[in-house]
Amino acid sequence: MKKIYIYDTTLRDGAQTEGIAFSCQDKINIAKKLDEFGVDFIEGGWPYSNPKDQELFNYFKKNPLKKSKLVPFGSTAHPANHASADKNLISLVNCDTEYVTIFGKSWDLHVQEVLKISLDDNLKIISDSVQFLAKQGKRVFFDAEHFFDGYKANPEYALKAITVALEAGAQLVVFCDTNGGTLPYEVEKISARIKQKISLKEFGMHCHNDCGLAVANSIINVGSGCIHIQGTINGYGERCGNTDLTTVMGILQFKMGYDVVSGVRMRELIHLSRYVSEVSNMVHRDNYPFVGKSAFAHKAGIHIDAVIKNETAYEHMDPSLTGNKRRFVTSELAGKSTLVVKAKELDFDLDKKSDQAKDLHKLIQKLENEGYQFEAAEGSFKLLLQRELKKHKKFFDLIGFRVSVEKREDNKLISEAAVKLRINGKLEQTASEGDGPINALDNALRKALTKFYPALSKMRLTDFKVRVLDEKGGTAAKVRVLIESQDKDDDWSTIGVSENVIEASWQALADSVEYKLLKDEKK
Amino acid sequence: MKKIYIYDTTLRDGAQTEGIAFSCQDKINIAKKLDEFGVDFIEGGWPYSNPKDQELFNYFKKNPLKKSKLVPFGSTAHPANHASADKNLISLVNCDTEYVTIFGKSWDLHVQEVLKISLDDNLKIISDSVQFLAKQGKRVFFDAEHFFDGYKANPEYALKAITVALEAGAQLVVFCDTNGGTLPYEVEKISARIKQKISLKEFGMHCHNDCGLAVANSIINVGSGCIHIQGTINGYGERCGNTDLTTVMGILQFKMGYDVVSGVRMRELIHLSRYVSEVSNMVHRDNYPFVGKSAFAHKAGIHIDAVIKNETAYEHMDPSLTGNKRRFVTSELAGKSTLVVKAKELDFDLDKKSDQAKDLHKLIQKLENEGYQFEAAEGSFKLLLQRELKKHKKFFDLIGFRVSVEKREDNKLISEAAVKLRINGKLEQTASEGDGPINALDNALRKALTKFYPALSKMRLTDFKVRVLDEKGGTAAKVRVLIESQDKDDDWSTIGVSENVIEASWQALADSVEYKLLKDEKK
Repeated sequence: MKKIYIYDTTLRDGAQTEGIAFSCQDKINIAKKLDEFGVDFIEGGWPYSNPKDQELFNYFKKNPLKKSKLVPFGSTAHPANHASADKNLISLVNCDTEYVTIFGKSWDLHVQEVLKISLDDNLKIISDSVQFLAKQGKRVFFDAEHFFDGYKANPEYALKAITVALEAGAQLVVFCDTNGGTLPYEVEKISARIKQKISLKEFGMHCHNDCGLAVANSIINVGSGCIHIQGTINGYGERCGNTDLTTVMGILQFKMGYDVVSGVRMRELIHLSRYVSEVSNMVHRDNYPFVGKSAFAHKAGIHIDAVIKNETAYEHMDPSLTGNKRRFVTSELAGKSTLVVKAKELDFDLDKKSDQAKDLHKLIQKLENEGYQFEAAEGSFKLLLQRELKKHKKFFDLIGFRVSVEKREDNKLISEAAVKLRINGKLEQTASEGDGPINALDNALRKALTKFYPALSKMRLTDFKVRVLDEKGGTAAKVRVLIESQDKDDDWSTIGVSENVIEASWQALADSVEYKLLKDEKK
Repeated sequence: MKKIYIYDTTLRDGAQTEGIAFSCQDKINIAKKLDEFGVDFIEGGWPYSNPKDQELFNYFKKNPLKKSKLVPFGSTAHPANHASADKNLISLVNCDTEYVTIFGKSWDLHVQEVLKISLDDNLKIISDSVQFLAKQGKRVFFDAEHFFDGYKANPEYALKAITVALEAGAQLVVFCDTNGGTLPYEVEKISARIKQKISLKEFGMHCHNDCGLAVANSIINVGSGCIHIQGTINGYGERCGNTDLTTVMGILQFKMGYDVVSGVRMRELIHLSRYVSEVSNMVHRDNYPFVGKSAFAHKAGIHIDAVIKNETAYEHMDPSLTGNKRRFVTSELAGKSTLVVKAKELDFDLDKKSDQAKDLHKLIQKLENEGYQFEAAEGSFKLLLQRELKKHKKFFDLIGFRVSVEKREDNKLISEAAVKLRINGKLEQTASEGDGPINALDNALRKALTKFYPALSKMRLTDFKVRVLDEKGGTAAKVRVLIESQDKDDDWSTIGVSENVIEASWQALADSVEYKLLKDEKK
């Protein structure tokens, strides 16, 4: 089976999405996830233009990726510099990677009006830049920026730009539809001409989605020269985004029979997509091809009837191949087997056909409809199972809390919380201040409990996430709070959902503490 | 200029979107909007299967559309019925429209496993159904459901299905990729074969987006037989949605030079798209091609510099052609040029080399380091510029607020907020409850201000996002709150950052209200 190389630029072009601002740690986490999944290339960033990206390359020098090749990105040398003295090129070399990518101009308009240099000078810059990197032992991907617009405006020049890059030692040229305005039949026709004129056998594609055609443009030459596709997870990117690699990988692997990553790993596609959307703090769109929650959801009655008779009636593929699942929107049916498996993981023997299993299943569906997402909150899920299976011991009861935030005339903010708990039959009432209302509540809860359970002083919260569900609800929208906690042996995650951010946080905090107490008791 | 007919099925197939539930009035409103815009055909619904849709057809009998043709949708006759006695077909006739659409089976699998009748019987049903409608004087569109899957499985049979429909008097056959799993090259190849085999000159396309290819598949045969494209506004539809007509119309009119609706009306495309998303209660996606808020938004510094030199550098077309506009998104990656442009938008001439520009740039970098992210908060950014450039008028001063959340013994949650403001020299003190502390604060603020500024009752919050920065800070971590607001003309976004979620929300709320007041004053 022929291999198509997947080149991910979520960390560089994806970071250009309006609304996305990755920290260096976010980028490192995403890179690790991509590596685990097994994409071929990960463009880590533009080290010269962004100090955060430099940090990332330094990190991976010490902690190399397992499968994917990390690639730094940069431009051709600045017109004022000799390639060998260009800081941008030198920073690429210093990343100590096998591959580097540079982009260069192939549209005469850009050369003359943006770079404001002569057409010949630009060709020399391309050539010198590639040559310099190749001489340093790098394999060079040359991104021909605006290649299709360039070819339409001045075909000879666009052709020259890639020819000099190849002659200078570029491993592969990548045709970029930078403005996203090229149509599939144009991509096909232009690529065919190029291949013929310079007997080019292989090339890459880098498309933007300004006409909703990035995926189509990216796959149209697969089978006739395109062996490398650049894009981002979930199609993140400036303006209308880049090619959605999630979709492209689904099509290549399951519709066209190419080898992207092994079928088994493709079952993780939905997790990769959701993970990246979580870290990006972007809503995971229900209608994403292959990985959206609605991608295999049937709502029309006649569709549901037909799918029950034969799934292929209204499904273009088996949803589980990308980790997705069939859903009937009006009447939820699926899921009990999963529940049995999960209970087993937590040492509960649950009979799939028992009333207990049915009730639990119903309860979880109800909670998930309300916005709980147990996939990301195993701690809360375990507590839920224990409560429902009557195997739960309570460590404390909440009688009430009160949280207040006051902004005074002197601009000072005061956050206070008071909690009233019953612990081992005793009433315990405490109050505490904090950095914000949730921290105050957290402090008050621990203050009350640590007296009785000193081990709580050994755990700490390591992550706190708030997600607004149903964002259209404005300030009355429901929120989901996810908390991660840690002690020296374990970490665990807990969840709370409410229209009230304080209440949602309380649920997650209380679960986190209970989980720790339970865990310690079992030892 | 050759005409391509646009057939909108937002009201029928679009209504199958998970999360969309149109009332009859919603459908009537959308139909009127589509008529005003000037699409050729509006599929109003399936009157036989849905009583709501019957109401809609009754309404438009009395209040006919001006430009668009209203079309009812139904199936071929039920196998048990003679066509002339089939209630579903009769209900179509009774809609008193010039055109009707029926779908029929063209995939042998569906005939045998879903309808459970013989292949010949299905052909007879198609023929009888079309003939019956044609004899009643209707122009009939025949949607060949699953046409491509059917052709792949049994080409002769799929061909027969459309042949009998045409022979029975169908005006046009529409090739449906019902499951959305067909690739562009397959659509092209299969359509070419059909045309040749039965000398078909014209046909329509109806695609689904399960592989992200609905738009590409819909336009691929334009120019070689396809004269009619079915789809929905914003691509709504079951699973991954239908062909996005918003995108298709943009491509046909501006990229391919076809006649869709006159150029002047195309400037309303963004309003149509936003209107439908509002009525559908779906978030209007920032990255929609042609009509998304980010579709012509530039974030990368080098892109912004280039676009200032020549717009076409990073824009595939003039944004105003679809009613959209160019935006420069502020971010740590963007430079001083952006600031100058933004100041210009506020009628302030900022010299890029002045101390004022340098100070502003430093301030913004400082705020962005603290977690402010102005790219997603243009409203707050504009207010900031005005404050710094000393062009700001205050509409109110905050003296203080107090927010509290109490969870009582009966498990009841009470959220209350009190605010103290100075407005036009007067002290105003109010309090309100709410669904959660932030909603309570929002309510109290508006209650205090609406007395003085009644226009505030015309704005609403449409989006509320919370992002925890530095998540490792646990419950004491900083949070960033983003709020989007809307009135009938505009939308704007504002931001707040603090370790205290209430304070961060306050900042964003206060900015949102100030922005609205300032905007109204300028008019």
